[in-house]
Formats: sequence, C-alpha cells, structure tokens
Amino acid sequence: MKPLELNWRIVLVRPRNPLNIGAAARALANFGLLEMAVVAPFEPTWNEARTAAVGADTVMASARAVPTLVDAVGDATVVIGATTGSRRNLGRAILPLPELAAWLRGRKARGRAALLFGSEKTGLSNEDMSRCHALVRIPTAPDCPSMNLGQAVAVCVYELTRAGIVSVRAPEVTVHRSEPANQQALEHIFVNATRLLELSGYFHPKSRAAMLMKLRRTLLDLNLTCNDVRVLGGVLSHVGWKLDDASKSKSTI
Amino acid sequence: MKPLELNWRIVLVRPRNPLNIGAAARALANFGLLEMAVVAPFEPTWNEARTAAVGADTVMASARAVPTLVDAVGDATVVIGATTGSRRNLGRAILPLPELAAWLRGRKARGRAALLFGSEKTGLSNEDMSRCHALVRIPTAPDCPSMNLGQAVAVCVYELTRAGIVSVRAPEVTVHRSEPANQQALEHIFVNATRLLELSGYFHPKSRAAMLMKLRRTLLDLNLTCNDVRVLGGVLSHVGWKLDDASKSKSTI
Repeated sequence: MKPLELNWRIVLVRPRNPLNIGAAARALANFGLLEMAVVAPFEPTWNEARTAAVGADTVMASARAVPTLVDAVGDATVVIGATTGSRRNLGRAILPLPELAAWLRGRKARGRAALLFGSEKTGLSNEDMSRCHALVRIPTAPDCPSMNLGQAVAVCVYELTRAGIVSVRAPEVTVHRSEPANQQALEHIFVNATRLLELSGYFHPKSRAAMLMKLRRTLLDLNLTCNDVRVLGGVLSHVGWKLDDASKSKSTI
Repeated sequence: MKPLELNWRIVLVRPRNPLNIGAAARALANFGLLEMAVVAPFEPTWNEARTAAVGADTVMASARAVPTLVDAVGDATVVIGATTGSRRNLGRAILPLPELAAWLRGRKARGRAALLFGSEKTGLSNEDMSRCHALVRIPTAPDCPSMNLGQAVAVCVYELTRAGIVSVRAPEVTVHRSEPANQQALEHIFVNATRLLELSGYFHPKSRAAMLMKLRRTLLDLNLTCNDVRVLGGVLSHVGWKLDDASKSKSTI
C-alpha cells in the first residue's frame, strides 16, 4: 500500500516535564518525523528538553512553542487525539491505535495531520478533544492504562510507520548470511558424526540403523548453512582425532 | 489468531540509567507483562528506578537483578535480542520488529520467551547476541537509529500486543455513542436550514434547485447522529427565530 500523502506534526499540549519533550523529539527523529509543536509548556526549559533529545537536534531546533492549541493545529486537515479513554465518558468512539491507519485510508486523508498528546497528569481536556476528528487509544492494560508521555509518542509514531502511514527509509544492512549447505556437505558431516559415535561406542547393534536415520533427519532439520558445516566439520574432525589418538595409545599399551 | 503460549520476560542487559529501568517496568505494566530481569545493572539504585515506574509496582517488586545473562535466560526456549543492527556486521539476518510474530508462529514457539535489550551506550554485545535465536530491529530512520531504552521497550511490547503474541484484556469502555440519525430527522434539519437560507436571501432563483440538492447531499455525507441532529436542530431554530423577529420588526417599521 502506498503511504498516504500526510504531513505529520506531533503536538504536545501543556506538557509538564521537559525530559518528556526531549524524549518525544527523539522518538520523532527515530522514525523520520521532523515537526513538533508544544502548546503552553508548563516549564519552557528548552535546554533541559534538549538533553533528552539525543540525536534529535533537527526536531528540537524546529520545534515551536505556541500559546494555544489552535495555533498548533490551525493548518491541519486531520486532527487525532491520543487518550487512554479510561477516565471520562467521552461520548464518542475511540479507535484502537492499530486501526488508525485503516480509518485514515477510509477517509482518504491528505495534507497536514496533527497527532495530539495531553499533559502527563490530565491528558487532553474535553475542549482539546472537541477539536479532534478521531481519538485513538493505545491498547494498554486496564489496571495500568496511562503511559509515560515519551513512550506513548514513541509507540504512536512506530505505529504510523508500521502501518505505512509514515515511510521510513530502511537502512542498507549488509548481511553476509552464508548459503544453505548442500547435501554433499551434510553427508560429509553425517559420515564424520557417525564415525565419532562408532568410536565412542554409542550404537547398540539392534537400533543402529534406526539411530542413523534419526541422525540424518536431525541434521536436515537444522537447516545448516555452509558456514555452520565448516564450524561443525572442524569440531567433529578434532574430536575424531582425539578419539583416534586415545584408541591408538590404548592399543599400544 | 490465538495468542501463542509464550510467557514473556523482558531482560535489560547492563542498563546504566535507573530511570530507564523504571520506564521499562512501566511499559511492561502498561501492556500487562509482569516479568523483568536486569543483568548487572550499572547502578543498582532500585529506588530511583521505582520513581520512574509509575503504576508498575508489581513489576518492580518482582524484578530480579542477576549477575549474568545466563541467569536471566537459562529457562527460556526462545531468546530474542533487540538491536539497531547499524554498527556491526552481525553476519546474520535481522527481523524487522513487525515480522517477529510471524517468525514466532512459524517456529511454533512455546514456553518461556525472553526479549533482550542492551545497555544505552553499546547495546547488546556479540556474546549476548550469540545467545539469541533471532535478532529484531525496530524500523528506525538511518540517521537516528538508536532509541531511548524505555521507549524501545515500550515499542517492542506494544508490537507483541498488537500482533497477538501477548494478549491484553481490553477495558470495558462504555461509549454512549448516539444512534445514527434517520432520514426523517435529517429532512427536518434540511427543511429548517432551507428556510433559514430563504430568510437570509441566500438563493439565486436560477441555481436554487441545484443548491438544494447539494445541501441535501452534504447533510447526508456528514453522517449525523441523533445527538448531532438535536444540537444542529436547536441552532437552526434559534437562528430562525432571530431572523423571523428581524423580518417582523422590519415589516413593522
């Protein structure tokens, strides 16, 4: 599914703790969002917020402190409010966060979108919520519903990414995963292992054939790579040499 | 899909900041997980951790500090390590977090599962990772990949819930959402609105019919509830009375 043409702004309404502002900024940066607005911060100590905004200099530098919510969402075509929904009878439906993407797609939402978070103590006010097109709830447990503000922002922004509502360019991770081992390589391991087991007197004559089949099957199930075979082959060889030595010295005595 | 029969433990390996331990505990409590283990905490100031663990008393009270990783995961049948995967060539595939659930289901994972997070500075060591059945990566942006520890835990635990790997009982939210308005109620609004527009001289005789159809269509698109109709009906009536008064006094003059 193609990402919606939405430009997100995260809005913190009356946050009290500058560490949470910084943590929110860091979460934005983590998921490639840039725009944050803070409505009437309780303690507008931006410097303190910055220390918590590790790696989020761009977000913090462009973050705006505004006096009212209208200043923060005036240009938005979609306003979403995050709430635990547990305290008040809100008189309206609350979307579970995992359903937000479908709701936005259903609406064919475009343009500027704002996602609001209330203060740590009281959340969004009824008036704040009256400006929201939809309310979302992170599906938390009933006995501990209220999340830390920075963590709630991180979870919501992760969900936007996960649902393809925000696109994060994936880093190019070069994984030198080894190729799967072929049958020849596995047979080599099998023969070596069988020899070891013979040397150590593992087999009972009666069950020998069945044990060998089981061993081969187990080897297949391991889905070994060429690399694994090299390591395992080395181990088996060394143990084999030791056992050979032991049996030789025993026969010399 | 039914939840996997997995018992999760979150393991913080050598965390340095007690606030992060507390924040992690809070995230666990938020999503109904109870078990946390902390390997060799840099500064085992549990009291400081507790202040950050709002509402997570049960989690903090049962959290165990253990000397080594083996002590924390010895009883686990599945061990998952969280990593940004950006610094080292890990030589193995890293699952994007949204794919973890499918991976666990594919494995038919059962029993005790552990999810590991490394220290804030260095993440999990290569040795820590060698004990993991799989590594997961939160899909963060390449230019700011490293998340705050408490936020990373929150996002991962949210994902476990979202994917049905952990089940959180949803709270019973009583929503007194009003019933959708029926056609009769909408027609009442429509008639009232039309009358108002007549009174205020809104219509041009030529476009009147087209405007009325547009108005009716717009009313339908609003998906009004009975409650909305009551509010809107009240507003229209009041404005109507005012306009009536005005036109009366005008005609009296």
